[in-house]
Amino acid sequence: VEGQELHIQPEGILLSLDIRVEKPSLSVPLSDEQALRHALGEKINGPIDKIDLFVQRELPVKLRRFGWELSVALRRDEVVGIAPRGTRWYGVAVDIGTTKIAAYLVDFTTGETTASKGIMNPQISLGEDVVTRITAANQTQDKRDELHDVLINSLNLLISNLCYETGIDHTQVAEIVVVGNTVMHHFFLSLPVRQLGESPYVPACITAVDVKARELGLKIASGAYVHLLPNIGGYVGADHTAMLLAADLHKRSGVVLGLDIGTNTEICLNHHGRLTSLSCASGPAFEGAHIKHGMRAAKGAIEHFQFNEGELLFQIVEESEPVGICGSGLLDIISELCRNGIIDQKGRLNEHPLVILDDGIKEFVLVSADQNNRRIPVAITQKDIRELQLAKAAIRVGIRTLVELSQIRESDIDQVVIAGAFGSYINISSAIQIGMLPLLPLERFDQIGNAAGSGARMALISSQKRLEAQEIAAQVKYFDLATLPDFQTKFAKATVLNNKID
Amino acid sequence: VEGQELHIQPEGILLSLDIRVEKPSLSVPLSDEQALRHALGEKINGPIDKIDLFVQRELPVKLRRFGWELSVALRRDEVVGIAPRGTRWYGVAVDIGTTKIAAYLVDFTTGETTASKGIMNPQISLGEDVVTRITAANQTQDKRDELHDVLINSLNLLISNLCYETGIDHTQVAEIVVVGNTVMHHFFLSLPVRQLGESPYVPACITAVDVKARELGLKIASGAYVHLLPNIGGYVGADHTAMLLAADLHKRSGVVLGLDIGTNTEICLNHHGRLTSLSCASGPAFEGAHIKHGMRAAKGAIEHFQFNEGELLFQIVEESEPVGICGSGLLDIISELCRNGIIDQKGRLNEHPLVILDDGIKEFVLVSADQNNRRIPVAITQKDIRELQLAKAAIRVGIRTLVELSQIRESDIDQVVIAGAFGSYINISSAIQIGMLPLLPLERFDQIGNAAGSGARMALISSQKRLEAQEIAAQVKYFDLATLPDFQTKFAKATVLNNKID
Repeated sequence: VEGQELHIQPEGILLSLDIRVEKPSLSVPLSDEQALRHALGEKINGPIDKIDLFVQRELPVKLRRFGWELSVALRRDEVVGIAPRGTRWYGVAVDIGTTKIAAYLVDFTTGETTASKGIMNPQISLGEDVVTRITAANQTQDKRDELHDVLINSLNLLISNLCYETGIDHTQVAEIVVVGNTVMHHFFLSLPVRQLGESPYVPACITAVDVKARELGLKIASGAYVHLLPNIGGYVGADHTAMLLAADLHKRSGVVLGLDIGTNTEICLNHHGRLTSLSCASGPAFEGAHIKHGMRAAKGAIEHFQFNEGELLFQIVEESEPVGICGSGLLDIISELCRNGIIDQKGRLNEHPLVILDDGIKEFVLVSADQNNRRIPVAITQKDIRELQLAKAAIRVGIRTLVELSQIRESDIDQVVIAGAFGSYINISSAIQIGMLPLLPLERFDQIGNAAGSGARMALISSQKRLEAQEIAAQVKYFDLATLPDFQTKFAKATVLNNKID
Repeated sequence: VEGQELHIQPEGILLSLDIRVEKPSLSVPLSDEQALRHALGEKINGPIDKIDLFVQRELPVKLRRFGWELSVALRRDEVVGIAPRGTRWYGVAVDIGTTKIAAYLVDFTTGETTASKGIMNPQISLGEDVVTRITAANQTQDKRDELHDVLINSLNLLISNLCYETGIDHTQVAEIVVVGNTVMHHFFLSLPVRQLGESPYVPACITAVDVKARELGLKIASGAYVHLLPNIGGYVGADHTAMLLAADLHKRSGVVLGLDIGTNTEICLNHHGRLTSLSCASGPAFEGAHIKHGMRAAKGAIEHFQFNEGELLFQIVEESEPVGICGSGLLDIISELCRNGIIDQKGRLNEHPLVILDDGIKEFVLVSADQNNRRIPVAITQKDIRELQLAKAAIRVGIRTLVELSQIRESDIDQVVIAGAFGSYINISSAIQIGMLPLLPLERFDQIGNAAGSGARMALISSQKRLEAQEIAAQVKYFDLATLPDFQTKFAKATVLNNKID
């Protein structure tokens, strides 16, 4: 998980106040809660509307233990946390992806990200993609509960780890913002998903949600809220809203295409201020899944590749020995093998000294066992190529659909913004070569990293950004690829490994 | 539990709306929550701010099961319940006493009370009065939890029973109002009580509270709230606020005394618009506890008594055979025995043919075993008389303290309003005779029944009454009898069984 710097100031969400509370006496026997209201009222020059009940349960003990001096986390008009005077308050921004979860711990005083961490989504054991997880959820209430519970448990663990790294207590976390695709959003909130899996594929909820963290089982400050940014549609979720927010896509002029590439790829076209978004099932190949020697972009992964005049050139993560292939490497390998005629346009491996048969399936050997201390070969198989063809075709059909809906041509696109961890590492030329991205001059492409996470962090600390996210969600028109009549034909055409499809 | 009629209209709390929700389609794939917002927005001519998350969890299934037609419980700006079109919504008002709990089921459409029920407070097994229960709660977290849990469990049962009687489902209950003394209030909300039991005896919270019923473990409509009226002070709780509200005590002119007699007796003096309240520990004698043949005012209880020229005259509940003595009977018996010189002013039983010794303790035999088919004698013991003396002294010291604080005399009191089930049944002359109530003309007394319950029912259905309750709580000055320097002397004096104390 990378931690891009944020350039916005905390504002309007959480105020941290150090106060001194008057001790009660027999002659002035104020209740603890009134005494707190008085002290706060003087500090902010106005009445305090609400003190969360769970904070009130802690108040009598904490006031007496901490000598009537407190640090108060004030969320708009509500006290959501109390701690000893001088305590700093934090927030956590979470991006729940189908495959990975990224979380950022943000200091509410400075707006600085003090720690960030990524883990695998534990729901993977219940289904690799959103469709199989919806199917699992439809089976029994237990499965539905499990899909929610494993998510919450791993978020609690993730938050604990972030806090440990920064040296703070989990009760100092006084706000969480969560983004994710609509299905993750629903699992997180324990909303039904059946209607998301059946025509007309509608979400239970898309509007922004504020809910007490404790009601979802999250263990942070006793009165803290979770805020979920609004979803845009059935398969375009709050993570896309966050991406558009962080990339300012809605404010850019001209014709701008935005992509967040992952297991689901969300694509938005801003056509002179009219925004349309859709989602396509690009599958987990870019995350290294369903690929024989696939892996995440960790130590030993081939992340870039060139094949020049018979020579194989690798760029390996942490400059280690190659042990597998991550998404960006996969893209380069297939692009380079195409360019060299070893893979034809239909994706078939041609004959070549490095093409061998393993278990009856053709594969191109990148690293042979004897080239490797660990004696592990690395190869790309015919099946791997098919996986990539399906993934890239899904993305390209998505792009072309948006372009056609706006009655323009791909060449009219002034700018392509690519978000997502994977999208930041890919070689754009490779992606163009195999026909995943439109044939446009390289300078029109902008790779911005995990923008969904950045958008979540912005919304975590800024009420202005939350408003903006709501405006974006209201403004973006959602298009469902399921309504495209000739989808299958277009998809089949788009699997071709060149950039000549029309 | 008696069900006084309410003369106010439901207003401003809960709106019941029958709506038709538009089915989504592939071309207009509105989320269920948006579709609900649209349908409601048209009905009330404005946007709906909030839909409770737990309602949203039910929404997709209920919309499809009930054919896109719903009855919606709208609480101010928030949807708190959904049900099939045509469903009626209800509220429950609860008065949690130290000894008894009374609950009323109210129809939110008509404001009518459709059922009411009383049960014993199950916390009695953990302590008979508030002081012993605070001690129990201070021992361990488990005890503290138990005091909360038994209360919630019996409320759930009570609500089930009320619903069963009216033929409705518990999920049709969309709002609860709770009143009780400050200690019951704290146990109900699971707030700490330690500081209530130690000088300066302050509550954790006195301001009105709104909390989701589910967060307390109450099983009603999924998004429903519990509203607690404000407390006035450490030992003057929301039940007193409700009593003042129902009795309009704050609006009456002149000098008005209000009493709610129970295990704790709350007393308020309205001295030309300046209100002061205090509480005194009158003990459970009036509920029939700690009295040898004491019982609740149920079948067979002696509820009234006269002793004229050697003849014993009983009035028995349900005109049955006498089996015990309830609070109002106890008061009459002691008053009549005093009047006839059988009990002296210090409370000692004199010699008399009906005064015998049982286990070394003197007692006056009211009903001998051979006068009774069941062969159960009913008597009043020397110890019973002492119990009543303590109870009545506590009340009288309370009254005198308020009178003295206002620098008036008891004879200046224009009106005495007596609330509470017990207070409604007592013979005022008897109470005056033994010195429990001031020596005033009988026409100045007004016995109004369970006013706390009526106040709770008013606040349940009327936002105006909730506001008024807050004004009352802010207006009433709380006085703590613990701060009275010569309390013990005054209390000892007030145990004398006449009305001549000065």
